[in-house]
Amino acid sequence: MSFTIKNVLIPVEDSYATFDVQVVDGTICAIAPDLDVMGSEINGKNKLLLPGFFNAHTHSSEMWQRGIMSMLPLELWLAELYDFAPLDLEKVYLSALGTAVETLLSGGTSVVDHLVLIPGKELETIATAVRAYQEVGIRAFVAPLIQDESLTAGIPSGETQQNHEPYFRPTQATLAVIEETVKQFHHPEEGISILVAPTGIQLCSDALFAGCIELSEKYNLCRHSHLLETKAQEKLAQEKYGCTAVTHLKRIGFLDYRTTLAHCVHLSDRDITILSETQSTVVHNPLSNLRLGSGIAPILKYRQAGVNVTFGCDGASSNDSQDLLEAIKIGSILHNVTDLDYQHWITPRQAVEMASLGGAKGLNMADQLGCLSVGKKADLVMYDLTNLSLLPRTDPIGLLVLGRPSNVVDSAWVNGKQIVANGKVTTIDVDNLRQQLFNHSQWHTQRLSPTVTQIEPHYRSVMGL
Amino acid sequence: MSFTIKNVLIPVEDSYATFDVQVVDGTICAIAPDLDVMGSEINGKNKLLLPGFFNAHTHSSEMWQRGIMSMLPLELWLAELYDFAPLDLEKVYLSALGTAVETLLSGGTSVVDHLVLIPGKELETIATAVRAYQEVGIRAFVAPLIQDESLTAGIPSGETQQNHEPYFRPTQATLAVIEETVKQFHHPEEGISILVAPTGIQLCSDALFAGCIELSEKYNLCRHSHLLETKAQEKLAQEKYGCTAVTHLKRIGFLDYRTTLAHCVHLSDRDITILSETQSTVVHNPLSNLRLGSGIAPILKYRQAGVNVTFGCDGASSNDSQDLLEAIKIGSILHNVTDLDYQHWITPRQAVEMASLGGAKGLNMADQLGCLSVGKKADLVMYDLTNLSLLPRTDPIGLLVLGRPSNVVDSAWVNGKQIVANGKVTTIDVDNLRQQLFNHSQWHTQRLSPTVTQIEPHYRSVMGL
Repeated sequence: MSFTIKNVLIPVEDSYATFDVQVVDGTICAIAPDLDVMGSEINGKNKLLLPGFFNAHTHSSEMWQRGIMSMLPLELWLAELYDFAPLDLEKVYLSALGTAVETLLSGGTSVVDHLVLIPGKELETIATAVRAYQEVGIRAFVAPLIQDESLTAGIPSGETQQNHEPYFRPTQATLAVIEETVKQFHHPEEGISILVAPTGIQLCSDALFAGCIELSEKYNLCRHSHLLETKAQEKLAQEKYGCTAVTHLKRIGFLDYRTTLAHCVHLSDRDITILSETQSTVVHNPLSNLRLGSGIAPILKYRQAGVNVTFGCDGASSNDSQDLLEAIKIGSILHNVTDLDYQHWITPRQAVEMASLGGAKGLNMADQLGCLSVGKKADLVMYDLTNLSLLPRTDPIGLLVLGRPSNVVDSAWVNGKQIVANGKVTTIDVDNLRQQLFNHSQWHTQRLSPTVTQIEPHYRSVMGL
Repeated sequence: MSFTIKNVLIPVEDSYATFDVQVVDGTICAIAPDLDVMGSEINGKNKLLLPGFFNAHTHSSEMWQRGIMSMLPLELWLAELYDFAPLDLEKVYLSALGTAVETLLSGGTSVVDHLVLIPGKELETIATAVRAYQEVGIRAFVAPLIQDESLTAGIPSGETQQNHEPYFRPTQATLAVIEETVKQFHHPEEGISILVAPTGIQLCSDALFAGCIELSEKYNLCRHSHLLETKAQEKLAQEKYGCTAVTHLKRIGFLDYRTTLAHCVHLSDRDITILSETQSTVVHNPLSNLRLGSGIAPILKYRQAGVNVTFGCDGASSNDSQDLLEAIKIGSILHNVTDLDYQHWITPRQAVEMASLGGAKGLNMADQLGCLSVGKKADLVMYDLTNLSLLPRTDPIGLLVLGRPSNVVDSAWVNGKQIVANGKVTTIDVDNLRQQLFNHSQWHTQRLSPTVTQIEPHYRSVMGL
C-alpha cells in the first residue's frame, strides 16, 4: 500500500507545480519535488493528480431502466419506475458494479448509494451492494432507501380527498432493518459506511425521521434524504406541515453537519439560512433536475450563504449516466444563466473543491478526505493529460471541468489501494460485467405504465396542467 | 463505395427492426431484411444505424483556447479571446482536424465551421481548413466569419457616447474575399460548401449583410449568422435599428429557408413568428449559452411555432468540447425546466431528428441528407450497443441521447465513404494529431486580458451590474 508518484502535475494556489507524492499505508505522507521513492514508483509525467470526487447521490439499481424512462416529471416518473422495477439480487449486484465502474472512470472514488431495497430481502439487498463495492474497492456510503408511506401520498391532494394504501412494512420494522444493517455492515475504516436515509418528507412519517435521528446519534451515522426536488413537494410540505419542509426538518432535528440533502431545488431564502445554520450539505444533481423538469437549484445562493454543496449523478433512470465529470460540468455552468453577474459564477477550481472537499464535509470525513494534503487518506485520481479530449494543453482543470473528457482517468486509488491502472479497473473484470449486463437485458421501446395512466389526471389537475 | 450492412438495428415507427442496408455509389439503395451483399459486407450485429448528425455551428480554431477562458459573458469573453488568439495556418489546420475528429466520434458527419480568418491571410485560412476537412472526409460547410465593425461596437452604448475604431478591412474588400472563396472552394458535390456568414448584427453593417445576400442569390449559397445570443445584443439592436434584430434582418432580406441562425436566445414571440414565416433555422448551442451565461433559448416555443431547430457545439472556447452527443442531450433536457407541461418536452427520437434532418433542412440538403431512406446520400453512423455506457440494453436511442455515451461510434460514412471503422478514424493519424496539439501548446493558468480590463467598467455599467 506504499507508492510514490514521480513528477505529477498538481494544483497549487492559482497555478500548477510538478511534484512527487509519497503514500505510505494509505496515507499521503509527503508532497514535494525530488522525493525518494517509497514503495512502488508511479510515473506521473504529463498527468494531473486530484483528490477523488464524491458521487454523492445515486440509486445504483436504476441503471436497469436507464434510457427507457418516459419524459415525465418526478411524481409520474416514479410511478413508471416502480411499475417496471422487478429487481433481483443478481441485478442489484451488477448495477452496483456498473455504478462503481462509471463513477471511478469519471473521477469519483466515493459513491453514496441511496439503495432501493427488495421488499422482504432488505438485508440481502444491502449485503449484495456492499459485496459489489468491496470487490471494486470504491469507497461506499450505502444509504438504504426507506419510507413508510405509499407512492400516491407523495402527490399533493390539492382540494381533493385522497386515500392512500398503507405502506407494506411498519415503521418500526424498517428501523429494525436499518439497525441490523449498521451492526452487520457499518465499517468506515474498511471503506463501507451505512447512512440513515429516509426517502424524503413526501413519503416518510415523523416517526420514521425520529427513528433515523436516534440511530444516527447512537451509532454516529451520517444522514441522507431527498429534499424539495419538485414544485409538487413544495406544495405537499405546506399541506402536510403548514410550513416549509426545511422548517419542519429543522424542528424535528434531522438537519446537522452530518446531513446531506439531495436536490434542494425549491427552497426559500429563509430555508437557505436554516441549511447554513445547521451546516447541512446540498447534493446538487443538475442532470436529473433537468431531465425530470424539476427546476434549477439555487446553487449560487447556497454558496453565497455559506452552505456546503457537492455533486451527484442521481440514479441512472433520471440522468441517465453515472459520469461524474458531466454532473460537475453541468452543475457548474448551468447557474451562469441564473445570475447576470459573472463574478458569482462557479470556476473550474471551485467545482473541483465542491466535488472533493464538499463531499468529504457532507459525509463527515473532511479531516481524512477531500484534498491533496499530507496526512490525508490517499483517495486519489490521476488524469492523462495527453488524451485528445484534454488537448491542446491549456489549463488542465479548466479542460477537465468544462470540456467533455472521456477515457482520461489513468489511475485511481482508494485508501492507498490502486483500483484503476492504465485506464482500466483492475479489481473486477469489466468485460465480463458488460457481458452480464447485456445478457440480463433486452432492447425495447417505450412501455405503457398502468400506474401513470391511473394517477396522471389527478397530477395534472393539482399541478394546474 | 458500395457496401451492405447486415443485421443492423434501425429505428422504425416507434420501435426498432433488424434490417440490411445496401449502399451503392454513395447512395442508400435498399433497406430491408435479407438483402444480397453488394460490395463489401459490414457486420451490423448489436449495432444501431442512424443518419449522421450536424455540428451546425462551431468555430474550429477556438480549440486552442479551450479550458482556459475566464468565466465571463460573451462581450468580455470575446475581448479575452481576441487578446490571446495569435493564429497561424498550422494551428488552423490542426484545430480543424481536431474539430472534425471530435464531431465524427460523437455522431456528426457534417460540420458548419464559422471560421475565424487570419487578417491578411483570409484565403489561406479557408484553404487550410478545407484541406483539413477533405483529409478527414467529413462533410464541411465552411462559413468564413466576417464583420466590418470593431469589437467595442458590439456592446450597447447605453446613455453614453462611445467611439469605436474603424474595422481594418473595408466592407467591399471582405465581400471580394468571400466571392473569391466561393469560386475556389464551393464544391458541394465533393462535400465542401461555402456559406455567407456575417458575424451578426452586433458587428456588421447593413452593407455587409446586403453583399452577403447578393452572393447567396448569385451562387445559391446558404447563409449563417449569430443571432441575439445575449441580452446586450438585444439592447444593441434597439439602439442600432429601433426594432428587434429579427425584424431588421427580415426587412433587409437576410432570412430565408437557407438561413441558419446560431443561438437565438433573446427573441420575442413576434420574432419567433418571423423565423417560422421565413423558414429560417435555429442552431441551438446549449452548452455555450450556459457557459457564457447567455440564457436558455426558448426551444420549445420554436418547435411549437414550427421553426426548424438543430444543434451545434459552438466553438471550443465557449463549450469547451466538440462532443455533439453532449450538445444534443443538454439541448434536449435543458428545456424541461422551462415548461411544466411534460407533453411539450423533447423526446430522444425528436432530438435525433433535430440533429439529423433538422441540420439537413437548414443547409438546404433535406432532399439528400438527414434520414435513413432509399435514395438519400449515405452519411451514416453506426453505434456499438455493447459499449458499457449503452448497457444494460433498453431503448438504444434513449441511451444514446440521455446517457453519456463514450467510444460508441463504431463506424461512420460520408457520401458512402467509410471514414471511421472499429471506433477509429481511418483517414488521418489521430495519434499524430494528438502529438501535434500537445507540441503546439503549453499548460498554463488564467491570464490577464488587457482589453477586458479596459472595457469591463463600461460593460458593467450598461448591463446594470
